[in-house]
Amino acid sequence: MTRPIIGRVVPGQWRSTGAPAPHREPGTARIAVDLLGGDHAPAVVVDGALRAAEDDPALHLTLVGPADAADAVLDALRPAQRHRITVVPGGTTAEAVAAGHADALVSAGDTAVTVVSAARALGRWPGIRRPPLAAVLPTAAGRLVLLDVGSTVDPDAETLATHARLGAAYATAVHALPDPRVGLLTIGTERGKGDRLRRAAARLLEDLPLRYAGLVEGSDVVLGAAADVVVTDGFTGNVLLKALEAVHGTRKADETRAAVLLGVRGVVVVCHGAATGPDLANGIAFAADLHRHRRIDVVQRGIA
Amino acid sequence: MTRPIIGRVVPGQWRSTGAPAPHREPGTARIAVDLLGGDHAPAVVVDGALRAAEDDPALHLTLVGPADAADAVLDALRPAQRHRITVVPGGTTAEAVAAGHADALVSAGDTAVTVVSAARALGRWPGIRRPPLAAVLPTAAGRLVLLDVGSTVDPDAETLATHARLGAAYATAVHALPDPRVGLLTIGTERGKGDRLRRAAARLLEDLPLRYAGLVEGSDVVLGAAADVVVTDGFTGNVLLKALEAVHGTRKADETRAAVLLGVRGVVVVCHGAATGPDLANGIAFAADLHRHRRIDVVQRGIA
Repeated sequence: MTRPIIGRVVPGQWRSTGAPAPHREPGTARIAVDLLGGDHAPAVVVDGALRAAEDDPALHLTLVGPADAADAVLDALRPAQRHRITVVPGGTTAEAVAAGHADALVSAGDTAVTVVSAARALGRWPGIRRPPLAAVLPTAAGRLVLLDVGSTVDPDAETLATHARLGAAYATAVHALPDPRVGLLTIGTERGKGDRLRRAAARLLEDLPLRYAGLVEGSDVVLGAAADVVVTDGFTGNVLLKALEAVHGTRKADETRAAVLLGVRGVVVVCHGAATGPDLANGIAFAADLHRHRRIDVVQRGIA
Repeated sequence: MTRPIIGRVVPGQWRSTGAPAPHREPGTARIAVDLLGGDHAPAVVVDGALRAAEDDPALHLTLVGPADAADAVLDALRPAQRHRITVVPGGTTAEAVAAGHADALVSAGDTAVTVVSAARALGRWPGIRRPPLAAVLPTAAGRLVLLDVGSTVDPDAETLATHARLGAAYATAVHALPDPRVGLLTIGTERGKGDRLRRAAARLLEDLPLRYAGLVEGSDVVLGAAADVVVTDGFTGNVLLKALEAVHGTRKADETRAAVLLGVRGVVVVCHGAATGPDLANGIAFAADLHRHRRIDVVQRGIA
């Protein structure tokens, strides 16, 4: 199944030394990972990559980072590990995907940098100006898509409406919900509650061709009974996500602690800056799943 | 200790029928409670009042609401209960406090209505334009003051700076922290992170005469290690509070699920709209404690 990639590749050329370049195989997923992304990089990135490679024999990993960091990692890998993990000095993970050398990217680096670099290298979908990050949260009722969780601060109401459509398409494509309920996160569920942005967005959401579940509150994101998709600005969403991750962090470790960028031509997974090795491995597995099932393509078709 | 208050009082006159009007006694706390406040009023309000009265023999409770609701409650009370609970038809809890008939008010009703009515009837402190609601959250490290949790949506940076001072004064007065660390809630802890409001507020907070702990994230509100007081806008604070309450609701019931209004001349405690009888009882006990120890006066002196 897997094709060994031995040694390091030459910067800018994206080929491994002494081995044929990888090509797409059914089931194989080639994931580019940001070597210096995250508070504890590169150690946790290498740890996460090794864990992911061990868990999934059809995974090829390309760690992308500055030459000196890449060299250090390369020297530390055992020959058996080099068969599965390529280290690429220079460039960005998004460039690796854009050049066809990887199927998806994972980064625990600065979210804004990752989003901008991915949108630039891969391109946005038609009609998407500000691609949101969507996170999947465990709830008492199952799971829930929360977006945006940090890509777009200070959005306007039109952006929230676009994000609502993207979130609904994601829930349909990935969570197999044919008609997901979409709620607008606010404070108080009576009509007219919330701040200026929410009052304007509520009016737009009511007119969208989706199942608008109305105004929901912070508790609904935890309980999950009121909506399958919850839309908010990237500031509130990020604050809420990090708080809930901190709560869950003390309780369970088996859930995906990563977010996916929607509205960009490619699979882009963002991990928390404080991600651990297992978190990175989890994000890599998430990216591989999105790629293998062409889920992002299905989302795009869903809103087209 | 307690002076019985029998029967109902005449609207507008605030005296009980057949018994002397209560007056201030050391240790006694007279709490006005909004009879129709909350999603499950008046049932949970009466339940909460009875629980609070049972727990604390030095408590006098005045339930304030429309005549028909008040009559129904009065009829349902047993004579022994009427000794401790007065039902007042008409007016607001804030008017009861302003008139000197109660020492503090508790409401699970619409937050905006309670805040406006309290500010109007009781008056604001000098220099306080938009009184914030402060909630105390349990954290891994102890407890933390989060404000604003729903009073002020769309604040400006100056309002956040004022709230920072109020929160610090509260932590000093109530949590006995002589020099509490005050953090600004945002997304990402590097300088310059966050939305427009946060970038402007961070510059103001740096110049305040308080121990500014810098930018904190949602996880810090849960963990509590980075700050003793966390300042945010009322929208984000309310979303976060309700989410964490929903998480904690499944785990512990012994903490105060109520917020206190700061910057108004009086003790004003706001409970969640979905408050239960025990939550209301807890809010009433919280209000009694604030009154008995003159904590709000101490907060005001702290920022004067």
